[in-house]
Amino acid sequence: MNKKQIKPFRPIYPSPAGLVTSISEDGQPNIITLGEIFNISIAKPVIVGIAIRKQRYSHTLISATREYVVNLPTAAMAKVVDQVGSVSGRDVDKFAAFDLTPVPADRVRPPLIAECPMNIECRVIGIQEIGDHDLFLGEAVTVHIANDALDEHGRMIVENLDPLCYIAAEYWRVGAKLGRHGFSAPEPGL
Amino acid sequence: MNKKQIKPFRPIYPSPAGLVTSISEDGQPNIITLGEIFNISIAKPVIVGIAIRKQRYSHTLISATREYVVNLPTAAMAKVVDQVGSVSGRDVDKFAAFDLTPVPADRVRPPLIAECPMNIECRVIGIQEIGDHDLFLGEAVTVHIANDALDEHGRMIVENLDPLCYIAAEYWRVGAKLGRHGFSAPEPGL
Repeated sequence: MNKKQIKPFRPIYPSPAGLVTSISEDGQPNIITLGEIFNISIAKPVIVGIAIRKQRYSHTLISATREYVVNLPTAAMAKVVDQVGSVSGRDVDKFAAFDLTPVPADRVRPPLIAECPMNIECRVIGIQEIGDHDLFLGEAVTVHIANDALDEHGRMIVENLDPLCYIAAEYWRVGAKLGRHGFSAPEPGL
Repeated sequence: MNKKQIKPFRPIYPSPAGLVTSISEDGQPNIITLGEIFNISIAKPVIVGIAIRKQRYSHTLISATREYVVNLPTAAMAKVVDQVGSVSGRDVDKFAAFDLTPVPADRVRPPLIAECPMNIECRVIGIQEIGDHDLFLGEAVTVHIANDALDEHGRMIVENLDPLCYIAAEYWRVGAKLGRHGFSAPEPGL
């Protein structure tokens, strides 16, 4: 395969295009569209990272109130996800402007977004400057998932999540399932 | 939408399923399959994070030699990506076992994987313990991309990258393109 070298710029794909909710000290919620949402610590504890530029309004809010919710939208919501990322919460009530429904969370103050099939409630345990973004580390305290996206064994039904993928500044739907983790493990003894 | 609460476990999707190459001090290369590969700092500088458990062989190698390459595979490579993740480089030469082709990198010692359409060369600038994983921060020093995945304006052609998505422990191909960043920005004045 012939290749060329290019200057790095946001090189990793795919990423989520998630809607992260936060709240001001006086109780006004906000939403930011973020591709930079990371599984860092997987199980004990579960720590979800989000990277936000210092000048964003959500940076101010989450730095002050130290809680956020990661809401993972459907591919059918791509247009509203893109719109939410195009304006600042300093100027616009994004729940009202984009017809999104806030629902009280269970353990944190920022609301869940009802339309998203997955909502992850997080409490900030650290903030650090890494290059041009600040990395917020949030311990995930509970997860809400749409009933129809869980099978009888508690396993996620990806088709029913209708995941939204962000790749090279484009929004994509998923296509064919190729296999499950371990589907082609070699024989013991390899 | 009716929802239930579940215990968090690796909740964010999609993630890449990437092949990260490293090298021992005596020049033996290794490969690890990782979902935890992150765009943290986007532009100035470009910092790519990877999270690895302490007990993995690649953790030992990258801690010692402080360089790695993120190789992003195609969906057509899902089987080999899964296989590479099923054995340890302490026991197996994964390039030989899985018929992957090492190619010298331009600025770091770990090799590129020829079969992957995108290769990101990284130099470690920091390592930190975050819960059950350690986060390696790597400055991306150059990126190699397949010629046919760049258009005449230098924009990536996602179809030709054939991206592989990892979602809830399953490998997925991408389907329909839904739009480009900014495709549905509201009118000025909203």
